[in-house]
Amino acid sequence: MIRINENYTKLAASYLFADISRRVGAYTAANPGKPVIRLGIGDVTEPLPAACIEALHAATDEMSRRETFKGYGPEQGYAFLREAVAQHDYAARGCNVAPDEIFISDGAKCDCGNIQEIFANDARLAIPDPVYPVYVDTNVMAGRTGPNVGGRYEGILYLESTAANGYVPAVPSAPADLVYLCFPNNPTGAVATRAQLEAWVDYARRNKAVLLFDSAYEAYIRDPQVPHSIYEIEGAREVAIEFRSFSKTAGFTGTRCAYTVVPKSVVAWDAAGKPHALHALWNRRQTTKFNGVSYPIQRAAAAAYSAAGSAQTRALTDFYLGNAKLIREAMGRLGFACSGGDNAPYIWINVGRDSWAFFDLLLEKAQVVCTPGVGFGTCGEGHIRISAFNSRENVEKALARIAAALA
Amino acid sequence: MIRINENYTKLAASYLFADISRRVGAYTAANPGKPVIRLGIGDVTEPLPAACIEALHAATDEMSRRETFKGYGPEQGYAFLREAVAQHDYAARGCNVAPDEIFISDGAKCDCGNIQEIFANDARLAIPDPVYPVYVDTNVMAGRTGPNVGGRYEGILYLESTAANGYVPAVPSAPADLVYLCFPNNPTGAVATRAQLEAWVDYARRNKAVLLFDSAYEAYIRDPQVPHSIYEIEGAREVAIEFRSFSKTAGFTGTRCAYTVVPKSVVAWDAAGKPHALHALWNRRQTTKFNGVSYPIQRAAAAAYSAAGSAQTRALTDFYLGNAKLIREAMGRLGFACSGGDNAPYIWINVGRDSWAFFDLLLEKAQVVCTPGVGFGTCGEGHIRISAFNSRENVEKALARIAAALA
Repeated sequence: MIRINENYTKLAASYLFADISRRVGAYTAANPGKPVIRLGIGDVTEPLPAACIEALHAATDEMSRRETFKGYGPEQGYAFLREAVAQHDYAARGCNVAPDEIFISDGAKCDCGNIQEIFANDARLAIPDPVYPVYVDTNVMAGRTGPNVGGRYEGILYLESTAANGYVPAVPSAPADLVYLCFPNNPTGAVATRAQLEAWVDYARRNKAVLLFDSAYEAYIRDPQVPHSIYEIEGAREVAIEFRSFSKTAGFTGTRCAYTVVPKSVVAWDAAGKPHALHALWNRRQTTKFNGVSYPIQRAAAAAYSAAGSAQTRALTDFYLGNAKLIREAMGRLGFACSGGDNAPYIWINVGRDSWAFFDLLLEKAQVVCTPGVGFGTCGEGHIRISAFNSRENVEKALARIAAALA
Repeated sequence: MIRINENYTKLAASYLFADISRRVGAYTAANPGKPVIRLGIGDVTEPLPAACIEALHAATDEMSRRETFKGYGPEQGYAFLREAVAQHDYAARGCNVAPDEIFISDGAKCDCGNIQEIFANDARLAIPDPVYPVYVDTNVMAGRTGPNVGGRYEGILYLESTAANGYVPAVPSAPADLVYLCFPNNPTGAVATRAQLEAWVDYARRNKAVLLFDSAYEAYIRDPQVPHSIYEIEGAREVAIEFRSFSKTAGFTGTRCAYTVVPKSVVAWDAAGKPHALHALWNRRQTTKFNGVSYPIQRAAAAAYSAAGSAQTRALTDFYLGNAKLIREAMGRLGFACSGGDNAPYIWINVGRDSWAFFDLLLEKAQVVCTPGVGFGTCGEGHIRISAFNSRENVEKALARIAAALA
């Protein structure tokens, strides 16, 4: 008799954004005359950069002629894209990352979700709270946790991000093997200083742990003191894997391209104490279970690094940061303490009450969709996340409606 | 201390096609004046159908304007594509498959590799030999097997496909929980009759097993008696999951689109004997670890179902089947027994000697790349696979060279 993977039954009934979508759907069905503005899910709204559009058309034409047609590409991604990433995202910032340490994929969500497969099933996890739900859920599915008790899974060391620590958790005293970090943070918008990242790299080296560093939002950093990559920290090449995406940088949420960096110097051990390069394990995982990203999409991603593409993607992130500033200022005027929004597209707002109740209030009184903080973890209770991804007109309209509703 | 998933160390050192690529690379480096013709890996060579190219351009233009721009799509795929699949691939053949039972993905390799995650870790496996390596390797990585002893992993019930059974294994007497099947077969090119598939559905129902049916090559079936889908068999909706791809149908190997059908009526059980719909589990897996296929690529895939697209994809598969006929006839004239090539793009050739030795012979004497049968499993020894995916000119040249080399 075939049995299921029973770890799935430990998961909360549905994914956060599916819950939100259901509530919004019910509201709009009941109130067809009241259009809602969505500042919940972090989904971009502005068109692809012109350089990416041009590259997508050109690559489509290549696929139409036998001489230039492309079949299976390298599972790890084409050299032209891996080299552009190494040059512009790493060498230009003084980081030593080789093109063959970069694995192109169709999404940071996939990579963040799949990376745990290459580690032992009894790895001790340290995961921030609040957090992007994928880190926790994929480990629950793999059986690395006990049941969920009161909103937390047994077997996870939660790294609490609160107003008291500026939403940047300090390194714990307890050891862990696998540590998820995300800066600029989703959902809090907080960034980590160089000294804070140095403490994490030091922690990983002392404990023989691996850091899984999600920097999907690095393009929003404007403070020149804030590191963009974990590899700006000395020693990180021995202990850290980094995830990045074109989704929030170049507007690729519907176009799908991302990458993961696995330095050849990062190792994990077998039971006999022998070190194994994680690069080889991830390469084996990807060549066995993945077949590379669509060729035209890789060409579009590479175009984001051209002179024109760089200027266009910078203009995109500047635009969303302009929205973020408006949101942070408006919520501040309403008396709420806010974090994020300056080096991140998210504003994390301490609303001082039940976060789903505040979600419902904004939906019903202002027809604005936010994300309830508790959906990201226990420490998210009392907060909401507002995303800067929308048109200027919609952001201004939403802020006016919120001000009126809360007046 | 972080430890690796030690199941990876059970895997053979490298993936079959990486091995081939290494040998071919070494040969061409040593013999720069001798261009090789690749009939090894099953990779298409003809351009995308014109209908798909047009749709890709049109969708690219949509991504360039705010009003038509698409961000995150449904993880399960857009309704326009799921409805086209349900209509043209299923309803048109009398199969009852609803659009929301179809999950669009970026590749059948990913889906075939990931599907095992939703099943218990001690599921008893039945896997054909020879076989597409992904079925076995992904289960080894998940820890469902013992070590590899003499080319076979302990804990797998191998379904032997040999000349004696026409390369279609009969149902075993022993029970299994999870059964991988692939028809038209890769690598043997064999197809299963309706009666043979009925026996497998009956086996699954009797044993409360699940069939994982890979029909990535169904578009090559020309015999009107041969089923294209497992859902043409009564009762299959209770026990079978089906994988399909646009790779070999519409030339999408480098464009990346596929789909998996999980009927809502297929269940597996928990330890307490309670049934769970696999549709819900796969939906949870995909929404947690995947973010959908690129919007322009989904538009291109849907265009393959238009009147023009259907004619163009039919012409593509007709063309490759023309190559297959030439290969089968030529190898037959050289005295080899062949299977496949009539309802499949692969010709499986009984060469009666060591398959890597025959691979090297063809590479060195004829500069033709085939795939050594043993790379697909123990029962593949003594065979090679020749793929029909190339230009007519190259196929004719390759066959002339092989004839001369073996004369």
